[in-house]
Amino acid sequence: MYVKVNERDNVGVVIKDYKKGEDIGDGILALEDIPQAHKVALKNIRKGEEVIRYGVVLGYAINDIPKGTWINEFSLELPKSPSLDDLENECCKNIIYNLPKPIRQTFMGFKNPNGGYAGTRNILAIHTTVQCVTGVLNVAVKKIKEEILPKYPNVDDVVAINHAYGCGVAINALEARVPIRTLKNLISNPNFGGEIMVISLGCEKLTVDKLLDEKDNNKDNVIILQEKHGFKDMINSIIEMAEIKLACLNKRHREELPLSELCIGMQCGGSDAFSGVSANPSAGYASDMLVSAGATVMFSEVTEVRDGVHHIAKRCLEETTCKKLATEMRWYDNYLASAEVDRSANPTPGNKKGGLSNIVEKAMGSIAKSGSAPIVEVLSPAEKPTKHGLIYAATPASDIVCGPCQLASGITLQVFMTGRGTPYSLAAAPVVKVCSRNDLKLMWDDLIDINCGEIITGSKTIEEKGVELFNYILDVASGKKTLAEGYGLANDLCIFNPAPIT
Amino acid sequence: MYVKVNERDNVGVVIKDYKKGEDIGDGILALEDIPQAHKVALKNIRKGEEVIRYGVVLGYAINDIPKGTWINEFSLELPKSPSLDDLENECCKNIIYNLPKPIRQTFMGFKNPNGGYAGTRNILAIHTTVQCVTGVLNVAVKKIKEEILPKYPNVDDVVAINHAYGCGVAINALEARVPIRTLKNLISNPNFGGEIMVISLGCEKLTVDKLLDEKDNNKDNVIILQEKHGFKDMINSIIEMAEIKLACLNKRHREELPLSELCIGMQCGGSDAFSGVSANPSAGYASDMLVSAGATVMFSEVTEVRDGVHHIAKRCLEETTCKKLATEMRWYDNYLASAEVDRSANPTPGNKKGGLSNIVEKAMGSIAKSGSAPIVEVLSPAEKPTKHGLIYAATPASDIVCGPCQLASGITLQVFMTGRGTPYSLAAAPVVKVCSRNDLKLMWDDLIDINCGEIITGSKTIEEKGVELFNYILDVASGKKTLAEGYGLANDLCIFNPAPIT
Repeated sequence: MYVKVNERDNVGVVIKDYKKGEDIGDGILALEDIPQAHKVALKNIRKGEEVIRYGVVLGYAINDIPKGTWINEFSLELPKSPSLDDLENECCKNIIYNLPKPIRQTFMGFKNPNGGYAGTRNILAIHTTVQCVTGVLNVAVKKIKEEILPKYPNVDDVVAINHAYGCGVAINALEARVPIRTLKNLISNPNFGGEIMVISLGCEKLTVDKLLDEKDNNKDNVIILQEKHGFKDMINSIIEMAEIKLACLNKRHREELPLSELCIGMQCGGSDAFSGVSANPSAGYASDMLVSAGATVMFSEVTEVRDGVHHIAKRCLEETTCKKLATEMRWYDNYLASAEVDRSANPTPGNKKGGLSNIVEKAMGSIAKSGSAPIVEVLSPAEKPTKHGLIYAATPASDIVCGPCQLASGITLQVFMTGRGTPYSLAAAPVVKVCSRNDLKLMWDDLIDINCGEIITGSKTIEEKGVELFNYILDVASGKKTLAEGYGLANDLCIFNPAPIT
Repeated sequence: MYVKVNERDNVGVVIKDYKKGEDIGDGILALEDIPQAHKVALKNIRKGEEVIRYGVVLGYAINDIPKGTWINEFSLELPKSPSLDDLENECCKNIIYNLPKPIRQTFMGFKNPNGGYAGTRNILAIHTTVQCVTGVLNVAVKKIKEEILPKYPNVDDVVAINHAYGCGVAINALEARVPIRTLKNLISNPNFGGEIMVISLGCEKLTVDKLLDEKDNNKDNVIILQEKHGFKDMINSIIEMAEIKLACLNKRHREELPLSELCIGMQCGGSDAFSGVSANPSAGYASDMLVSAGATVMFSEVTEVRDGVHHIAKRCLEETTCKKLATEMRWYDNYLASAEVDRSANPTPGNKKGGLSNIVEKAMGSIAKSGSAPIVEVLSPAEKPTKHGLIYAATPASDIVCGPCQLASGITLQVFMTGRGTPYSLAAAPVVKVCSRNDLKLMWDDLIDINCGEIITGSKTIEEKGVELFNYILDVASGKKTLAEGYGLANDLCIFNPAPIT
């Protein structure tokens, strides 16, 4: 058996390993061994002809490809990426308003004391201006979690926002704005309940005033280690301030809120060729329901959108949005070109092992997680949204870099689709893990929250899994723990710094 | 009172805060308030004239500077940095063989089972190919440290070598060689006793074969999470392998070894204008004694050597070393220029507050930590040395990036000089903290191991503090804990990646 997505496709994706000579279905015999999730030629394709999946050209046949042949990264020549000139002309060409009806309209969240999106968790975040303070802060946080946090049962966690930025960097370089914006906007993530706590060293380049407004930059919120009398005083000061903040956070409680107060992120990592036909479309379906109910959903990853940018542009509601989309894509093209690489630096060996032959195929699968809703806004990395609805946040595709960017943009929950499997998670927001194939769920039963492999084997539909995911997202947003949360899994925050270090 | 380093100097550094009108010494009256560690004009300096400290031109007077004036970052125009052309012509112009005699010839270290430098600590390092595995590994390491490590009393610690590299990066970009070399060479740091343990995800770009030779890339040393049956199996597999490695490491013991088996790093951070006259020259004196006894000492920081590169070149023993020095400096010039910044992106606000007006002044102070020994080799970031003696390792100046580079080059102990104060430390090697002024020692008594402020106030000489530091370095190399080690302080490893992420 194989999966064919679009009637134009001349390749299918096999749902299990096939041996040479076996019948794949429709009378197609495997001309060689074909691994699960890889592509098989459904017709004879001549050298130079288009190889089509998702109804789009993945590439051009390097040699003649007889029907039944395994098609992989070595079979295809990469097409040119779509032009970014006049992208605004694509605006509004594919606006779909008829989205799946949401079956729930509310969730149980923590109202934001500053207005705006609500929290899905109640976390004390301790921010840092610079890596130098990390060692001290980690010792303090361990002590706070063990000795102080248990006294404040309404607070979920204490999280040190450690990162590699802050000093030894070219802080006046133009692109320093990206990491600075990320760290500044992280502070107001709704999961942190409006409480501000920043640890500074005192001599770093990223001065506190670059992160906090004047009204917040005071002794109630900021500890400068160089002003403290040694290690013990540092630890005591951090614990003392944390206890004051914990007491405030402890007064918060969950209440029923409209989905317009929910802001979540969509992300995929360790993808395979099933991702684009099972996990990602299910996420897209859930996304459409969420957007339809007034929620805000972000999707990201520049190199995984680049080859489908025209599809994205057609879904933008305004020309200015298309123009910003083009600007972000162009910036990244230049960023990669400066090191003499291009979008083909993505995919990974694992993606290829999972059947994804090139970045065009990966991109088409990746975009599927955005569903079909109109796109209301495009954000630069770590920018805050100004609108509700489906938003494209133009972050790197790297999971560990996209995560902090989306957190800075204000997501309070992330949905993470994977085909090969990654235990990726975040400390500052729950990460719902969705897999693309049954084998991964079987292998990682205690890590994968939702299995979309049942779509591949035909026992469930995209709509059914989309509804299941929609419900699970709202349950987690309302306090249910993900499997990864239960183990305390969290990756480090890797802040995107396109500027040099010194 | 003020400190004047070279007879040519037309500025001095005041050793305490002075009020306007006060006598600074030698009949110089402060024309305005001058903060401690800042420069005062010792003569009338006319607009455009050279301002000289350490006998070198820090810059040119922007306006007339009457005697007694406070000289700071706003007083000076930055001179052009020294030319890199024909740097090999400087070779051998200042070779000093008459170094201070070492008062000890041995230390108590862990002999390296693979030959080469010995360990100063006996650590189980668990390496990672990619950030994705960090969450799982951290949970396992916590459990190992709490439940397993106590059974192996000869092992000092278990350290996860987490980092932000490994996937979502342009792995085929030319400069990807820097992070890959760093992670590969870290594995053979002598403090890890030759035991190899690597956690891989399974689909990442930084495949295990890029880090390990074929003979080491096997099930005894490598765990691939995607091959494990879920979270519990991952944790159990890591603990099981760790216990085998711990049992091997536990058989190691300290023995008396010649100093030729010691390799240490010198680094400074959070410097002030005293750093170059107290802490760094003392470190230089200790370095000369160590080199004289056959040890290997690395110093680093490209932007903090750039303006004194001709002084460094004169101390190189071979023309090829000078040529490599020029190559490394030129690479960094271009790296900074690509973002339209230059070496003036260093210093920091704290450096300036501490009296360092510009990068020339910072560089002259920074170089002082290299003492006066001949330079036998220049290394690219994270390269392994091939020679014994004083080595320039051309890493970024950022403390948190220099640290992992020097660890990858094989240091087993770092000496860290600071003026403003930073609690920086490393998990993989002890970091001896040395301060430049008494006030910092008073403030951070429980963090600073050695105070060189006594040189500023005249109660001790550079030689006396150099000998004290030499002894302390050997004590720590032989097992004595630094103050920071006692608290378990450690910064994250920030791997230098000059290539793009994707």
